Amino acid sequence: MRGLMVSLESPEIQNLLSEVEQRIVENLKKGNEFLNGSVDYLFSSRGKMLRPLLLLIGSEAGKKRDRGEILNLAAAIETLHVATLIHDDVIDESEMRRGIQSIQSKYSKDYAVYMGDFLLSRAFLILSELDIPRELTLSLAKAVSRICTGEIRQYSNRYNLNITPMEYLKIVSGKTAALFSMGLSSGAYICDADEEVVRKLGHIGYRLGLAFQLQDDLLDYMGDKELVGKEVRVDLLRGYYGLPVIHSLNGPCGKEIRDLLSDGVEEEDIDRVISLIIEGGSIEFTRDLVLRYRDKTGDMIKGLPDSPAKTLLYELLPRFFSRVN
Amino acid sequence: MRGLMVSLESPEIQNLLSEVEQRIVENLKKGNEFLNGSVDYLFSSRGKMLRPLLLLIGSEAGKKRDRGEILNLAAAIETLHVATLIHDDVIDESEMRRGIQSIQSKYSKDYAVYMGDFLLSRAFLILSELDIPRELTLSLAKAVSRICTGEIRQYSNRYNLNITPMEYLKIVSGKTAALFSMGLSSGAYICDADEEVVRKLGHIGYRLGLAFQLQDDLLDYMGDKELVGKEVRVDLLRGYYGLPVIHSLNGPCGKEIRDLLSDGVEEEDIDRVISLIIEGGSIEFTRDLVLRYRDKTGDMIKGLPDSPAKTLLYELLPRFFSRVN
Repeated sequence: MRGLMVSLESPEIQNLLSEVEQRIVENLKKGNEFLNGSVDYLFSSRGKMLRPLLLLIGSEAGKKRDRGEILNLAAAIETLHVATLIHDDVIDESEMRRGIQSIQSKYSKDYAVYMGDFLLSRAFLILSELDIPRELTLSLAKAVSRICTGEIRQYSNRYNLNITPMEYLKIVSGKTAALFSMGLSSGAYICDADEEVVRKLGHIGYRLGLAFQLQDDLLDYMGDKELVGKEVRVDLLRGYYGLPVIHSLNGPCGKEIRDLLSDGVEEEDIDRVISLIIEGGSIEFTRDLVLRYRDKTGDMIKGLPDSPAKTLLYELLPRFFSRVN
Repeated sequence: MRGLMVSLESPEIQNLLSEVEQRIVENLKKGNEFLNGSVDYLFSSRGKMLRPLLLLIGSEAGKKRDRGEILNLAAAIETLHVATLIHDDVIDESEMRRGIQSIQSKYSKDYAVYMGDFLLSRAFLILSELDIPRELTLSLAKAVSRICTGEIRQYSNRYNLNITPMEYLKIVSGKTAALFSMGLSSGAYICDADEEVVRKLGHIGYRLGLAFQLQDDLLDYMGDKELVGKEVRVDLLRGYYGLPVIHSLNGPCGKEIRDLLSDGVEEEDIDRVISLIIEGGSIEFTRDLVLRYRDKTGDMIKGLPDSPAKTLLYELLPRFFSRVN
């Protein structure tokens, strides 16, 4: 599709993403009439479609232009991602997703478990139908497996006050970076990009994924005064510690935070914990890390040979991190 | 592996099934150290391994003997099956599985959701690693999708007093028959059996799966006096109606059963419902159907060309249904 997407602003991108979404819905509806209602509901609010976007950008690094194949691969990757979100919402008991009620909240946890499984199976079905090399299917299956182990790693580390930043990065690497990396590199791969470019795009996607997740950890501390800590609160209560928390545990206020968090934090102590995290400089630390990752990713993009993909990535980078600066 | 398994009694079969199990565990342990404990626990009690057994039998209808490929395919299919069991136990809140605590009961529902996902992803990983035709991967992905839609169909039909026997058979066809069919036919397929034999084995597996599930519905009415209805009770309370219940709803006691079941049955009315199901002849009806399916399957086996697979299927058939006669 080279040349069609000269800029992220072009309506062509939104059209392609809409078409990816349409293919996802069509594929899911082929499955079972009982699901049609919930599939329509699920896609009544559109996600950010970051993984399909990365795949479309990656495809611009290549030569071949099999439109249907690119769109179907993007549909498979987004379907995998949405499946994991549905199951995440079951575990986190999240009420909302993309501004509407989550599947578990609207239909029940039980339904959400089955629906997530169904989406996973349909994603693999799309992949099996695609005429792509076994090597790529294998990489995607590995990425899904890494997402699952990332989730389990995160779950197993709940309430772990000794979790290291390295362990945390391993979690994030599975949860987010694996599929970002696959999106960008597989788009290039199926469009016959040079092997070296595919490899580099994989690294760029991975780094973007890490930075994106760290930014997510951070943003909740940076909103309006009243909103600060809403997600942080829930995460602290559930024992999920993001990088700001993990950093603060080893910082100047570490002892006090540790005492407050041990055996699970009390509702009334959360404000104090959040204050300590901010005072101890852990927000600054995380923000610096995100910016460092962003700049490093910029350098990596610089190292790509000229292509529309390179231009688009340069355009994408500041947008991804517009809220951190 | 033709010729090694002359009889179901041969230790070779148990050895092969043990090796399949070993491959499953090894594959899962490659995934994530956090899971090792729960993987060991999960396989500390051995399942019936019916799907791998069917696959091994199917392989005896072919010519080729790639041992590793057959065992890995069997491992993938059993892994898929175990993944669905783990999620079923989440939804049914089942305490026990294979004589030990279920994963959801021992580790938590949340953990079981992630663990099931992990097993699904590893099953697809094994499939992606296998050097099998795309056509087979596609059929397996379709079978998994059918299992999921079978589960959703069943879930959506809870408390449905107007569910038809046909609708019920559709549920069973997804839940059990799809993977029985794939087990038997894919074993033959990867061993280069004749296309016609592969097709016939697919039908035999499908029919076996239906009969097996119907037998399951039935057995709970046929145990010791004190045990009768233990599972039936749970299913009635949860609104899951097996064929005996569905048949009875349209039988002579249908009106009374309907009244007792409408708006969910009361604990104290369950004995009465079970009596009515038995009095109305629905147990006899279901048993006759199972025996008819069994005999029909026997006829289908008769139609196979001579092979060790045919001999083994003849040996398997009465064992599958030994408790119904």
